[in-house]
Amino acid sequence: MSQYWTDLVRRLDPYIPGEQPQDQQYLKLNTNESPYPPSPEVGKAISNFDTDLLRLYPDPESTELRQALATQHGVNPDQVFVGNGSDEVLAHSFQAFFKQSKAILFPDISYSFYPVYCALYEIEFDKLPLDKDFCIDVESYNQPNGGIILPNPNAPTGIALSSSSIKTLLDNTDSVVIVDEAYVDFGAESAVSLIGQHDNLLVTQTFSKSRSLAGLRLGYALGNTNLIDALNRVKNSFNSYPVDRLASNVAIASVKDRIYFEQCNQKIIDNREQLSQSLATLGFHVYPSSSNFIFVEHEHKAAVELYQELKQAGILVRYFKSSRIDNCLRITIGSQQDCYALVDALKIILTT
Amino acid sequence: MSQYWTDLVRRLDPYIPGEQPQDQQYLKLNTNESPYPPSPEVGKAISNFDTDLLRLYPDPESTELRQALATQHGVNPDQVFVGNGSDEVLAHSFQAFFKQSKAILFPDISYSFYPVYCALYEIEFDKLPLDKDFCIDVESYNQPNGGIILPNPNAPTGIALSSSSIKTLLDNTDSVVIVDEAYVDFGAESAVSLIGQHDNLLVTQTFSKSRSLAGLRLGYALGNTNLIDALNRVKNSFNSYPVDRLASNVAIASVKDRIYFEQCNQKIIDNREQLSQSLATLGFHVYPSSSNFIFVEHEHKAAVELYQELKQAGILVRYFKSSRIDNCLRITIGSQQDCYALVDALKIILTT
Repeated sequence: MSQYWTDLVRRLDPYIPGEQPQDQQYLKLNTNESPYPPSPEVGKAISNFDTDLLRLYPDPESTELRQALATQHGVNPDQVFVGNGSDEVLAHSFQAFFKQSKAILFPDISYSFYPVYCALYEIEFDKLPLDKDFCIDVESYNQPNGGIILPNPNAPTGIALSSSSIKTLLDNTDSVVIVDEAYVDFGAESAVSLIGQHDNLLVTQTFSKSRSLAGLRLGYALGNTNLIDALNRVKNSFNSYPVDRLASNVAIASVKDRIYFEQCNQKIIDNREQLSQSLATLGFHVYPSSSNFIFVEHEHKAAVELYQELKQAGILVRYFKSSRIDNCLRITIGSQQDCYALVDALKIILTT
Repeated sequence: MSQYWTDLVRRLDPYIPGEQPQDQQYLKLNTNESPYPPSPEVGKAISNFDTDLLRLYPDPESTELRQALATQHGVNPDQVFVGNGSDEVLAHSFQAFFKQSKAILFPDISYSFYPVYCALYEIEFDKLPLDKDFCIDVESYNQPNGGIILPNPNAPTGIALSSSSIKTLLDNTDSVVIVDEAYVDFGAESAVSLIGQHDNLLVTQTFSKSRSLAGLRLGYALGNTNLIDALNRVKNSFNSYPVDRLASNVAIASVKDRIYFEQCNQKIIDNREQLSQSLATLGFHVYPSSSNFIFVEHEHKAAVELYQELKQAGILVRYFKSSRIDNCLRITIGSQQDCYALVDALKIILTT
């Protein structure tokens, strides 16, 4: 602590990301990165980049990237906001929409960055419990609120809501509903098609998971122009140029390669289904996932022990020391080879 | 306006950056970009980049980049904070240090983003007038305050304070003093050497100007570990990974090429001195600049007309429609050829 800190900074309880050892000694199944490299078009975009252009500021509006995303999602460019990772986009969204007189609502088991944003912007929140199967109870959100945010599929459970459930949420509130679709491309229904009818809907997506570009830091929001305008007001009061020239070119190349994108996501889905079956035979309960990770609980062995023993075996998975889920592990879906390595390691751990 | 916006968003008055036409039809002397390309090492860093690594998150601590900057500046890595442009670093700094019960202080003529940050974080401020020669009156800051921020050299005047004046500021306050050294490499004295004795000093710098990397978005702060800790608390409550893998590699390559850096900056200084003389002979008053721009006022012709006529001639300079400086132009120092083109255009404008 320091005499120079603001009271706000003293009160913060910052987000702790999954371990990021830089020595590449581990099989990393802990931060939901893709096991597959980004599109080959990304490599070409980097090779073809004119380095001299880095002397000039990027387009503060990211016009070309927003156009590419608009085409991809069937919306207008003025319904697209881009940022330096979806975490930045979410941060701006909390400030733009959620600093209200009423508390905002999100699930008790969810992305653990949400309460951190609330602390950063002094926003009140209520956590609504998932049901006993770890599903979001949509009806429980039908109460006065300053906004609603939920990941779909939810993290760390991987369980998805249907588009009709999202519609119910939207119909029951006059506040902004943010659907955080970081993992939507692995089998869930996107709410983007609802934007036209619901001017209180903001959908956020990321290049970090399904586009194999966690190292690039690119995220975006889609919604009614009025909501995008609010995000631009915050962004232009924070940093006029959040997306650099290289990142913009790389992101555009990725968006335009739809075939590779779909192929990689299908491989992840296939690996997930196969891994889920293998773990079930080892005595795990596997929650039904629509994500690039699975959430599991073993019938006998404590999650914290499994986490530690896997780490000793060179495999990182994510363990959350939180109420209700402290006997579960979140495991990223790797390549087929990664999944085999995990199953082999678990077989040894569970039989010794 | 929208029913969904927070009151805060309604009140914002976002920053407006200098015009950024994307068609490259203009000679851009309006946003203080370098006329020279970045270091050749930057091109090599991009060519050698392993694209497959983009699937993995970057190091959230930016350890290697902070180490490179620490070596460059003779400080410890835990005295370095990096971000997505110095605008982001400044934004975090306002939240970390300036949300105090007393108003913060900055010059009335200064970087116009400061009051925007104040609105974003609901911080009170007082603007203290520059003296009649547009110099900062250090003694006027000797009053109760919640913090002090000033660019050194100041923008848009280009006029620098000596290191001993900065020391006076630091000695006269118990609050945090941020010295924004975006333009320090063009001939001003840096305050970095004062960090060891002044635990309330934060110095910010950028890769956008003297490193020819405005398109990369990289800025940083140097200060006492306690101040850096506060910035990390804010950053880790906002976006765990602000610096992407490509940007980090490019920045490291740039920092390590000291010779190219110094050569380019010396060329800018030489061009500035030559241009200042040429403009003086055309009837301009040129304020003494230690920056990569000059601030000028013509003895007869109104600045707004000069701005418009230069734009018609294909040259963009910066005109601020603000009290006290609405008869001045800020002109970025380009290459020698750019400077000749500007002088030629002005000769025509001033004789017709």
